[in-house]
Amino acid sequence: MRVLVTGAAGFIGSHMVDRLLAEDHTVVGLDNFSTGQQRFLEGALANRQFRLHQGDVLDRKSLGEAMQGAEMVVHFAANADVRFGTEHPRKDLEQNTIATWNVLEAMREHGCSRIVFSSTGSVYGEPELFPTPENCPFPLQTSLYGSSKLAAEGLIQAYCEGFGMQGFIFRFVSILGERYSHGHVFDFYRQLFQHPERLHVLGNGHQRKSYLHVQDCLDGIFTALGATNARLNVFNLGTDEDCEVNDSIGWICEYLGLRPEITYSGGERGWIGDSPFILLDCSRIRALGWQPRFTIPQAVQATIQYVSQNPWLFEAR
Amino acid sequence: MRVLVTGAAGFIGSHMVDRLLAEDHTVVGLDNFSTGQQRFLEGALANRQFRLHQGDVLDRKSLGEAMQGAEMVVHFAANADVRFGTEHPRKDLEQNTIATWNVLEAMREHGCSRIVFSSTGSVYGEPELFPTPENCPFPLQTSLYGSSKLAAEGLIQAYCEGFGMQGFIFRFVSILGERYSHGHVFDFYRQLFQHPERLHVLGNGHQRKSYLHVQDCLDGIFTALGATNARLNVFNLGTDEDCEVNDSIGWICEYLGLRPEITYSGGERGWIGDSPFILLDCSRIRALGWQPRFTIPQAVQATIQYVSQNPWLFEAR
Repeated sequence: MRVLVTGAAGFIGSHMVDRLLAEDHTVVGLDNFSTGQQRFLEGALANRQFRLHQGDVLDRKSLGEAMQGAEMVVHFAANADVRFGTEHPRKDLEQNTIATWNVLEAMREHGCSRIVFSSTGSVYGEPELFPTPENCPFPLQTSLYGSSKLAAEGLIQAYCEGFGMQGFIFRFVSILGERYSHGHVFDFYRQLFQHPERLHVLGNGHQRKSYLHVQDCLDGIFTALGATNARLNVFNLGTDEDCEVNDSIGWICEYLGLRPEITYSGGERGWIGDSPFILLDCSRIRALGWQPRFTIPQAVQATIQYVSQNPWLFEAR
Repeated sequence: MRVLVTGAAGFIGSHMVDRLLAEDHTVVGLDNFSTGQQRFLEGALANRQFRLHQGDVLDRKSLGEAMQGAEMVVHFAANADVRFGTEHPRKDLEQNTIATWNVLEAMREHGCSRIVFSSTGSVYGEPELFPTPENCPFPLQTSLYGSSKLAAEGLIQAYCEGFGMQGFIFRFVSILGERYSHGHVFDFYRQLFQHPERLHVLGNGHQRKSYLHVQDCLDGIFTALGATNARLNVFNLGTDEDCEVNDSIGWICEYLGLRPEITYSGGERGWIGDSPFILLDCSRIRALGWQPRFTIPQAVQATIQYVSQNPWLFEAR
């Protein structure tokens, strides 16, 4: 199968490229390298079944060229930064909502009818129900990031209904693992790298979050792709555990052998739109036979190991 | 209070303008007259507290000018056409989603922090639960129209959370009454006006729909505005009854004294994305003391009376 991966040089995108190539698919990778890293594609670029297309999903000409002949699109290009939405509110609209519309239109023009989309547990806002299933009570949005992803989900759903496409929407918790290059583990490591004696934490440290290792995330996606022919498929992807930000700090400090003085900005939320508790009910994807191989502490430690062994990531940002 | 009404020359917008003026507010009406009618504003234009601003919500300069000094925005400008989404998929994205983002940004720039928004029961797609409450299971979108309105809702919710705005989101059933100028009653009347002996119906005629008279709709909005100071307010607005398309045809034909031969395109849905059954649970707004004054047959007959007395509407489209 010929697959277009948008955001191919990103954290999760580059792993998807590697996995598709390992399964002998032909892959076109599209990335604008705004946050993607050429280094993540080193292995792929040595494979003759991979072609890298430098371009932006907001540039419809570039997108159309990359879409040529694609039978499936894995649409991972996005503004993945949930935290700074209120500082640049157009960014989520453009890079997540309008970009997804562009991808769907390009698919329609080029006769491609299968899409895999990286949504987020943030679409649940601050849910009433934990663990939160896919069909929980109709949520209210609390972040521009979540609302832009929800809008993209809605577009995909309407295109599947209106144009006979097949859609796979995955609502991820925070993903960890090799090539991880933004988010709290990254921020904490950077702080401790600069000044090992102190660490500043947004919120009160008691925010309860869920994490999933990137290989478990990809396993989940391929499990779903192989298991259903339904037109529209929505799956939560996370572990059945959650942890406090303080737990995560503990694992990081233990790995690094540090005992920093910790200060907190305070409050239940790290930032506006931060959800104080994320725990997804993943029984829908588990019913297809999937289960994660990494626990949260294992995923955090794999991440901090990767980050500490790849200091170039700090310069690359 | 100074209120900006977008879509001020539209069906519901022009009634909103009249009601706000009757309650002694100062009103700026913004409309691009793509479907709005100057005639609907005849009364308003004679009122010194009304100013009409011809412009488009997609033109941020024009929108910013209209926003000057506004304390509340009633954002009704929209592509209200649920049926033809797949013929021009960019229209819903632009006129409903991006336009709402423009309105929210203009509010932020101009320090306006209260928004009333016309959403739709279409955001429930094909719900599992009837009557459908605001917090029904997280729905899947089935139309580009519904998904564009859901996206707008999400933006409003995220802006309320992120920027301390207050939002009132109303999910309307189909609205009927004076100045009604698109939708099934309009289409049926036009067909019967051209050839009284026959009527063609999309779907099998058994689609179950809900309708609400425009004055009841406005009563609901003002009830909510007067009853709550919550940051975010989502209300269904409809009657507690539904009817089949065939019932509606019966009332129209009875009013016109016609017995046309009726043909059906067939199928449960009139068009792609049509919902075969819409019935909203409106107990949330009823708990605030609101109740509709018109039954569905009364609303249909008021509408057909208006349409039959205003043949200029056909030429205006």
